[in-house]
Amino acid sequence: MSIKTSTARMVTVATVQFEPIVGDRAHNLTAIERLARAAKAKGAEIVVLPELADSGYSFRDGDEVAALAGPVPGGPSAETLCRLAGELGLYIVSGVAEQDGDRFYNSALLCGPEGYIGKYRKLHLWNNENRLFRKGDIGLPVFDLPFGRIGIAICYDGWFPETFRELALAGAELVCVPTNWVPMAGAESAAEPMANILHKAAAHTNGLYIACADRIGIERGQTFIGRSLIVGPQGWPISGPASADREEILLAQIDLSSVTETRALNSFNHLLGDRRDDVYG
Amino acid sequence: MSIKTSTARMVTVATVQFEPIVGDRAHNLTAIERLARAAKAKGAEIVVLPELADSGYSFRDGDEVAALAGPVPGGPSAETLCRLAGELGLYIVSGVAEQDGDRFYNSALLCGPEGYIGKYRKLHLWNNENRLFRKGDIGLPVFDLPFGRIGIAICYDGWFPETFRELALAGAELVCVPTNWVPMAGAESAAEPMANILHKAAAHTNGLYIACADRIGIERGQTFIGRSLIVGPQGWPISGPASADREEILLAQIDLSSVTETRALNSFNHLLGDRRDDVYG
Repeated sequence: MSIKTSTARMVTVATVQFEPIVGDRAHNLTAIERLARAAKAKGAEIVVLPELADSGYSFRDGDEVAALAGPVPGGPSAETLCRLAGELGLYIVSGVAEQDGDRFYNSALLCGPEGYIGKYRKLHLWNNENRLFRKGDIGLPVFDLPFGRIGIAICYDGWFPETFRELALAGAELVCVPTNWVPMAGAESAAEPMANILHKAAAHTNGLYIACADRIGIERGQTFIGRSLIVGPQGWPISGPASADREEILLAQIDLSSVTETRALNSFNHLLGDRRDDVYG
Repeated sequence: MSIKTSTARMVTVATVQFEPIVGDRAHNLTAIERLARAAKAKGAEIVVLPELADSGYSFRDGDEVAALAGPVPGGPSAETLCRLAGELGLYIVSGVAEQDGDRFYNSALLCGPEGYIGKYRKLHLWNNENRLFRKGDIGLPVFDLPFGRIGIAICYDGWFPETFRELALAGAELVCVPTNWVPMAGAESAAEPMANILHKAAAHTNGLYIACADRIGIERGQTFIGRSLIVGPQGWPISGPASADREEILLAQIDLSSVTETRALNSFNHLLGDRRDDVYG
């Protein structure tokens, strides 16, 4: 596998860590607009927001989900986010509660200067989400943007190395991760939450940029751990981790073309090419 | 997925970090015997040794490999290791240079009180190993020992999350990792080498115990990074990491039955059961 020299494809990515309020879509969309404008002012060209950033997370029941979710595209959150992306001339990846007829999904939408681009529906549902949402049924899509190919994963998806592997094999160079990381038994240490370790490992083993935007706050008794971070393709943080409990915008100017060289480790080894598909089940 | 209560299945695992000398099998087997006896004296019931512990690593050419490698079982290293396991009444997992007719493999053997049990041939070859060895052709075997089911992986295998996933899906509770970790571009930080991070992530995402035995020293200009460690099924080190450059034995008394409960995260989620095989390619 030869090392390709590529033209730089620079982009400034931002992750927004904030505290959505469950049940108050108007408040959340106002906060998102304020923070997206702040990120734009710092140079952001793509802004990643947390999981379920429009609705909050700790729903009482399915009726509350139904009251907050909307069509993607076309619903109130999608319309607001796409208008904002158009006005600011940047790309937005945001978690949203999606309604599709009588089905509900924990989704993320992607929109850009040109409007709505696409969406992803969370494949691996965590805990009570299994009572409230359908499991994702549109696979792991990738999207070609002017600076490169991106994928999306949401929170507990990151506990499945398959998620990042599939996206890398589909050509993703950057994975945007809207998340609502919660404290997990055995997943916390004083030094570093396991959520951060998992995304460092996923970035390193796949030669991927990964941008995680977590939420903060305590919502109906549920704590969220913050610690958003942006990881480079060698697995090390290039921005963050953020604090556990403060509103923060992380920024990193990255060159997506560097992924190609990072994956070619030496004249014999390639992170994706060395896979033993003849052995894996 | 219900949480099973299980009878404890305790075992004391040791990883031996030392400096083999390339080309000097007699020296290496003598060092292994000394260190296995020391581990036994500390209570070890299973001893993990580094990759190519009998031969050293930095071969000049294929002729040197041919002069050092032997049949597994039956060759001089395998005979010595199996005799030692029998005499000490414990299990040994050791990297060995394997000859099979005119083929050579970077292998690991497993022997116990009853003698030779089985072997593994490294699936993912690193750098010049590709010129010296065949790629592993016996898959990822698992072995049922009195205390539980174990698998084996070697060094660069750990860069492929598929390795640990396949072993966990095959029922492994402990993966023994003979390794010769070398400094990799972008894989080192002052705080923690990426090799350690990858095995913490693999243990956490699969609910596996992982015991990594690395070598130390500088051999024909090649540095090895030490930092052996034993990781518990929640992903945190339970012994080590060891130093970068000193001979060390790490020990951990572990309960392999705990893997079952660790994998069942809550009433909805299971680390292996939540996989979306319907989506992964």
